[in-house]
Amino acid sequence: MVILLTNDDGIFAAGLYALYHQFEAEHKVYVVAPESEQSAVGHALTLSNPLRVKEVYRNGNFYGWAVSGTPADAVKIAVNELLPTRPDLVISGINLGPNVGINVLYSGTVSAATEAAILGIPAVAVSLDTYTNPDYKPAAEFIYKLAPKVSKLNLPPGVCLNINIPALPLEQIKGVALTRQATVPLKDKFEKRVDPRQRVYYWEAEDGFQGQPEPGTDMYALKEGKISITPIHHDLTHYPTLEMLAEKYILF
Amino acid sequence: MVILLTNDDGIFAAGLYALYHQFEAEHKVYVVAPESEQSAVGHALTLSNPLRVKEVYRNGNFYGWAVSGTPADAVKIAVNELLPTRPDLVISGINLGPNVGINVLYSGTVSAATEAAILGIPAVAVSLDTYTNPDYKPAAEFIYKLAPKVSKLNLPPGVCLNINIPALPLEQIKGVALTRQATVPLKDKFEKRVDPRQRVYYWEAEDGFQGQPEPGTDMYALKEGKISITPIHHDLTHYPTLEMLAEKYILF
Repeated sequence: MVILLTNDDGIFAAGLYALYHQFEAEHKVYVVAPESEQSAVGHALTLSNPLRVKEVYRNGNFYGWAVSGTPADAVKIAVNELLPTRPDLVISGINLGPNVGINVLYSGTVSAATEAAILGIPAVAVSLDTYTNPDYKPAAEFIYKLAPKVSKLNLPPGVCLNINIPALPLEQIKGVALTRQATVPLKDKFEKRVDPRQRVYYWEAEDGFQGQPEPGTDMYALKEGKISITPIHHDLTHYPTLEMLAEKYILF
Repeated sequence: MVILLTNDDGIFAAGLYALYHQFEAEHKVYVVAPESEQSAVGHALTLSNPLRVKEVYRNGNFYGWAVSGTPADAVKIAVNELLPTRPDLVISGINLGPNVGINVLYSGTVSAATEAAILGIPAVAVSLDTYTNPDYKPAAEFIYKLAPKVSKLNLPPGVCLNINIPALPLEQIKGVALTRQATVPLKDKFEKRVDPRQRVYYWEAEDGFQGQPEPGTDMYALKEGKISITPIHHDLTHYPTLEMLAEKYILF
């Protein structure tokens, strides 16, 4: 297969390299990723600034292209400009930290997969459920086994898979769950501080989620020690409300 | 009503002021918006940098708070830190240019409304279908009439309205359509250029959409000269695929 790897932690991230290392012997692998960390950029594009592209070498060998933009930029420019051929699969990750629940919306990792899906290419976003001492190998092995199956799933146009993997050895993982995105709200918090020049500033300092995730959701699966796979898409229409409003025809 | 106004064109944008001007006599209006233009930032958050907040005056009077972040940051910090009371309604806009079809995903204007909906506050995103010589007055008047009705719609938790308005006098607008988000792909294009130091750079230079929008979509409504109202939400799960995959139980 021809595989495009990208991420939002930046081209030098260990999670991206774990995928590269896993796939490169058996597949044609291209790496196109942001040159710097782009976490929580959501589905941003760089329109007001030019994009720069740099060749990146690793141990003296060509590794890939670093893009001065977001994950969605990286996928767009990879497919439209940089790659000599259209990839069969785009893998975004392995992200350091989970991308579940409402955080999916803020996730650069997921937006790269969504962008690939928009471009009509099978895609998965992969995240590891830990922020510390990550061992990416089990997750990379799981994705390696999954990869050839993704194109056979015949996902509808625009749909990709958001995969979250417990930070455990494969034999300790309790299975694979097909899930929906949890919608429990975050505990929003801002820390107000004063800088050395006596000016106020704020840190966004979310502290987890309010309440417990429901069974069937991505968050619940991780809590149970399972890999969660959520099919996601980019049509934000809320169809039940559309029907409800159409019935009422509001008040215009 | 207590109304929070925000946008992605920046706190000094004329579209935001048009809403302020329309609402401020009859309602308690707060303005919290990015200090600079934040178009195509999608649903980004500022986590790696502190947020600064500045008081902004207009004609000698306090106008609002400028936030050194994205539209989603502005809504979060407004509701959690800056406003003395919880708003009854968040209005994001009026954006210079439409936010329809796939572009909804990249839209800072829409992400501000989505963020408000996540926080449990009724919200609308408003965009004007022109990039040149905008007259925001008709759109502001329409939103002014709509505003008191939004909370009565009893939108489900997490659902907000994405509203796009033709750049026409109200009497020339052909009506209001309840729509879904169009999914026709963009014509992606990158312009490759050489800078004065002989280094290559790229501009993202999308040139509209591939093909025609279907009836029932936001894009189609605008083309017909109608205001489009699309209920949107932030659960990206593609439920039909979830069922399909669950039936197959893939190949694990």
